[in-house]
Order: sequence, then C-alpha cells, then structure tokens
Amino acid sequence: MSLIVQKYGGTSVGSIERIHLVAQRVAEARRGGDDLVVVLSAMSGETDRLLLLAHEVTDNPDERELDMLLSTGERVTIALLAMDLRAMGINARSFTGRQVGIITDSAHTKARIARVTADRIREALGEGIVPVVAGFQGINEQSDVTTLGRGGSDLTAVALAAALKADRCVIYTDVEGVYTADPNIVPSARRLDKVSYEEMLELASLGAKVLQTRSVEFAAKHGVPVEVKSTFKEGQGTLVTTEDEDMERLTVSGVSGDRNQAKITIVGVPDRPGIAARIFGPVAEADIVVDMIIQNVSQASLTDISFTVPRADLAKAMNLVQRVAKDIEAKSVTVTEAIAKVSLVGVGMRSHSGVAARMFEVLSREGVNIMMISTSEIKISCVIDEKYLELATRALHAAFGLDGTGSES
Amino acid sequence: MSLIVQKYGGTSVGSIERIHLVAQRVAEARRGGDDLVVVLSAMSGETDRLLLLAHEVTDNPDERELDMLLSTGERVTIALLAMDLRAMGINARSFTGRQVGIITDSAHTKARIARVTADRIREALGEGIVPVVAGFQGINEQSDVTTLGRGGSDLTAVALAAALKADRCVIYTDVEGVYTADPNIVPSARRLDKVSYEEMLELASLGAKVLQTRSVEFAAKHGVPVEVKSTFKEGQGTLVTTEDEDMERLTVSGVSGDRNQAKITIVGVPDRPGIAARIFGPVAEADIVVDMIIQNVSQASLTDISFTVPRADLAKAMNLVQRVAKDIEAKSVTVTEAIAKVSLVGVGMRSHSGVAARMFEVLSREGVNIMMISTSEIKISCVIDEKYLELATRALHAAFGLDGTGSES
Repeated sequence: MSLIVQKYGGTSVGSIERIHLVAQRVAEARRGGDDLVVVLSAMSGETDRLLLLAHEVTDNPDERELDMLLSTGERVTIALLAMDLRAMGINARSFTGRQVGIITDSAHTKARIARVTADRIREALGEGIVPVVAGFQGINEQSDVTTLGRGGSDLTAVALAAALKADRCVIYTDVEGVYTADPNIVPSARRLDKVSYEEMLELASLGAKVLQTRSVEFAAKHGVPVEVKSTFKEGQGTLVTTEDEDMERLTVSGVSGDRNQAKITIVGVPDRPGIAARIFGPVAEADIVVDMIIQNVSQASLTDISFTVPRADLAKAMNLVQRVAKDIEAKSVTVTEAIAKVSLVGVGMRSHSGVAARMFEVLSREGVNIMMISTSEIKISCVIDEKYLELATRALHAAFGLDGTGSES
Repeated sequence: MSLIVQKYGGTSVGSIERIHLVAQRVAEARRGGDDLVVVLSAMSGETDRLLLLAHEVTDNPDERELDMLLSTGERVTIALLAMDLRAMGINARSFTGRQVGIITDSAHTKARIARVTADRIREALGEGIVPVVAGFQGINEQSDVTTLGRGGSDLTAVALAAALKADRCVIYTDVEGVYTADPNIVPSARRLDKVSYEEMLELASLGAKVLQTRSVEFAAKHGVPVEVKSTFKEGQGTLVTTEDEDMERLTVSGVSGDRNQAKITIVGVPDRPGIAARIFGPVAEADIVVDMIIQNVSQASLTDISFTVPRADLAKAMNLVQRVAKDIEAKSVTVTEAIAKVSLVGVGMRSHSGVAARMFEVLSREGVNIMMISTSEIKISCVIDEKYLELATRALHAAFGLDGTGSES
C-alpha cells in the first residue's frame, strides 16, 4: 500500500462537472488500496475574479488583506470535493493550510514555507480518511493567512508529500507531461517518461508552465518523486526524479523557447571599473531580473553593454537605464523587443562534449544569427531574432535526435 | 472615548460601491474619536450562490464541509473593507472568526457560541487598529470552522460587544429601525426610539426580520445596548435596551402580523388522558414547532383539538397527524391554511390591565372573528382569517394610539 499525494489544478476543478470527474478519479485510486491526500487549487478564473474585486477597491491593495481574500478560492473547491466524495461513500475531509500546519514566513502574496507539521493529516490518514487540502495557502507565526504565489498549490503538494514521506506526488494538469519541445511548434515533440529535477528546474525557469519552479526545487531538496500527468486523459505522464543512467544516455532532453525577454543595449559606455555596478545596481534594486549580459571588446576606451530583461519590466528598466546612461555619459540606449531565447536542456551534456558547437552549427546552417549566449552545466541558451524561434526550435529538435526516430544525426 | 461595535449586513456590503460607503461611514466614526470594531456579513446573494454550488454537488451536502464553504463569504468582504480603509489611511485589519476567538460547539451550520476570547481584537485596539471581523463564523474545540446559522453575524457583533464590554453595538441594516407596525401595511407606522430586549424578542420571534432572535437573547443576557439603524440614511435608529419608565408609559409598543402559520384541526377526538401526548409527541420529535393549541369543551366524550404549525412544515405535520388520528380513532383531520396571527407587544401590558379585552373589542367591531388566542406577560396574539390581517393591523395600530397622534383612544 502506497501513500500518494495528488494535486489537481484550477482547470481540473473549474466546474461542478469537473470536480465530479476528480472525485471519481480519487475514488478509483482509493478503491485501488492506496492512501491518498488530495491538494486542490481554486476554480480556474476565481483568483483573477477576486484580484479584480481588490483592484476595484484600490489600485494598491494591502498584501495581508489580499491573502485573506485570495485564500478563499481553495476553501471553496476543497469543501465541494469533500462533499462530493462523502456523497460517494468515501470518508473525505477538507483541511485549510492552517489546519494542515503549513507554516510560512510573513512575505504576504509570496510567502515561503518554513515548515509543515501535518499532524491533522497524519491523524486523518490513520483513521482511513482522505484529506482534501487547500493548496496555495499557509499561516505565519502570528496565525495570519499567507499565500505562496502563483502556482503555489504545486508547492503545497510537494511540501506535504515530503512531510508525510509519501511514495509519490502526482500533479494532475491539463497537459500530458513534459515534452521534448512545445508541441504547438514542433508537431513531432515527444512526452518524456522521465526527467531529472535539474532539467525540470531549467525548463521551468525557461518558461515551461508545467510545474512551478519552487516546487521543483523543494522536490529536489527532499527527494520527492513527482509525476506530471493529465487529469482528463488516461495514460502515463512524466516522472521528475533524481538523475539516472537512462537520462544520461541522451545528450539533450528538450528544446525550449522563451519570447518574454527584451534586449537593452547601452552604446558607447566609457570602459572604466565600477561601470557595471552603476548600471545593474539600480536594476536589481527595482526587482528586475537580468538574464544575460554581454559586453563588446573595448575600442578607444568605449564599449557597448547589452542585456536582457523580462518584456513586462522593459518600461521600468528603460526608465532607470536612461538615467544611468546620462550619468555615466554613454552615447545612447537602444532596445530590441523582437528577440527570443532558444535553449537546449539535458543532464547528458555533462558527459557529452561538443553540444554547444553543434548547436551553433545548426543555427548557422539555418541562417539564424546568434546575439547572445549563456551556458550552465546542463543548459545552453542563445538569444536570436524572434522571427526565427520556430525554425530554430524545429531544427534543433531534429538535429539532437528528439524527433522520435531515436537516431542522433 | 467610547468603544462601539458596528455590524453591516449583506445588502450594506453588496457591491464594491456599497463597501466604499461603509468604509466612509467607518472612517467618519473613527475620526470622531471612537474606538471601533466592525463586523461584516457576506455580500448579499453570496451565501445563496455557495449553497447552490453545494446542492449541485449533492442533494445532502455534509454539514462540516458546508461550513468550510459558507465561511468564505465573510472573508471576502472583510478583506475588501480592510483594503479600502487602509487605502483611505485608516489602520484597519481583517480577522476571521478563528482569529477573533469565537469558540463554538460542533453543531455545524447552526453552532452555538461557547465563549469569545477576543485576545487579538483587544491587542489590535490597543495598537489603534480598527479590527474588521468576519461575522457568522467560529471554530469548534477541534479547530474546525463552524457557522452560526442565518443572521449569525448579528450574534457575532453582540457577542463581541459583550466580550469587549463595548459601550454599544450598532446593527446597520436596510431599514431605519424597529417600527410600531409593518410600514407596508400601516403607512402611519412610526419608528420606535427605544424598545426593551423582551419586546424585541417577541417581535423577532413573531417574524420581524430586524434582528436575529438569538442575538437579542444574548444582548439581554449580557446587557449589551443594541442600536438598529440604516446604513444608507442618516438619523436615529431604535435602541434595544433594558426596560425603563418611558417604555412602561406606553401600553403597547407595536403590532405585528405573521402569515407563516397554518391551522390543523383533529375532529372528534376521544377525550381521555394521554391523548395530547400521543398527538404532540411525534410532532415535536419531527422538530415541528407548534405555536398555539386549543381544545374545545368535550361533548359526549368527544372533543376537537386545533393547533398551528409553520406553513413550511404543514405537509410533514399532516403526514404524522393523520397517522395518529387513525390510531386514536378520531373522526377526521381538517386544515386551514389561510390564517394569520396578529399580535400586540409591549412591556406596558404588565401594568395596564384590559389590553386583551380592548383588543377583542376592536377586532369584533371590525367584524374579525378570532379563532385562537395566546398570551404572554408582554404579548397577546390572535389567529384570524388571513384576509383580515391588514385591516386588523391598522385598526389595532390606531386603537392603541400608535398612529403618532400620541393619544390613546
């Protein structure tokens, strides 16, 4: 008999009919003999509805009060699912973040989990009850309600699985798992049976929306096996787990594309020590994440510095950068919005040399100019002209043997 | 400086605009120098919306889960009002029933308050904070969410006022106070400046929807002065307080009408000991409240027994009564639905004799036949044909000098 934590996202509980489908799935698993804990998100759209109400009240709602407001969404779904299960003869009980003992810091709207007591959940499991837990929420040491940020229900599920030493945490969602590339761009993309925590982390931070980044970090740290699969379709999903030999046999596990970046270039920067700090200090203080930076070779004591920022933060960043550029007497500031980042991810890169060279060669053969490059142990990213993103993704997917033929060209 | 508990009902917080009106009212009172605690209901319609969701899931939703679901409505309004107040520069903070320390028994959906700790509220008041409290909810000893039943927010406000020894509990609602009669029936009805707890209790149990019965009992027990007034109009309301000389000067404080009763008559009942118990035992067991009972003088060892039940319970009651009538060999059972109860309420009745006689005389003069009579120390009720209710109400209102002329005829 295993202990499984199941998590269902907002679209999986988006209506009474879908909640009933989830109830049937839970009942089935329960009758199969497993001990279950179910973690739920709010109905899809509910968090946005509540946010809209808050923003009708004031442009800048207090964050403690926002958490009080937003935490109601999950309470509705857990109550409804528990009712449904009980009506089906399954002894289910709903529990809030507080009742579970999800203790967080006080960073309202983006709280971090400090510890998970889970006493009432252990007790409930001991009595044969199926606990239905509100995701996304906890309480701080003052017993005030906190929320864990967007996608926080994944984190609730993983943290609870770790605290209970569950055999597996299954994240039910509206996709069938993790793919070698976005199937909308690469029709031949395949679902991966297994992916390592590190690869998943790189993919999540590159914009793959399958799992929230922090939940992957948490799973890696506590060694929780996480399976991502579809609520609506039967069949295997993707298991996120510790690296193994299977994974290393493949050079590259996936190709990922990200359009959410913009490039800022400061032209004619005097090449003196301390200039970088003067540029990036204010940007960091404004909580803008700079992803890549390149600096040209200095000519006549002048250099150009380019860097990428999230497109949503571009206006804020430009404001700061133009002020700094004036202060340091740079010549001008230019912006390129139409860029994209294409990345290869795979733990196999550690033991396979030449991946970067091969990537550049493939892109060059397709006539794609590389503007910026960054690498990590298991990832290579290139910034390219946005219009080439689909072409580059498909070419790399084929070149690294991900098309399902199994042969690396 | 006084400590005032203000409570706003569902229509008062029914939209963002109305919540903003409440915020302005709170801000005004706060700037006037009073210490304030604000208790809120859910937005009007929200509790019904949630109930509908539950009944879409199952015909018979689990009551613990129902409380988890229904308690979300007040959390939404307290968060929104606290945000609004903070945006206006008032240091407000929302608190749930649990955070206030409203400890109840475990009778889910109709829990009774066992005690109110209010530690965090005292602390907040000490720091100059305006606590905004979720009405209608508490937690039981197992830390599960409970609700106090319809109108429970009134009870939260009164119980909190008692625990904090507040100077006054003000119930803001959509009427201007307690009236001498329903203004829809009696255009000359006047708002009462003051009414005693006992009168208010009689009026509430007679169907006046101004205050929930249990909250009046609680206020009387703890001597909390309760003022009922309009959220939307300026001006004085009605103060519900301990009986005083002013009140006793008036014979009658109000006339009340109730259409929610039906009359059942068992004809030809053998007049033997124990018969009443055989009839009313099963009715009481089925939780049906019998309001009035009359028994005719026995003729030839046979008698007729008539009694009234809430119209909503009529079918259930008839089912039981017909079975019993057969068992005890009564002749038949008849039903009259078109009845109404008209009542006079007033603490002055204690010292003024002849009120009942005068009431019967007024009704007789108007040609209204009296079917049943019941009296208490401060109330006389007559069951009459429903079609005469408005006529009887207006005639009694005038006859007992409530029409605002001040002269008792």
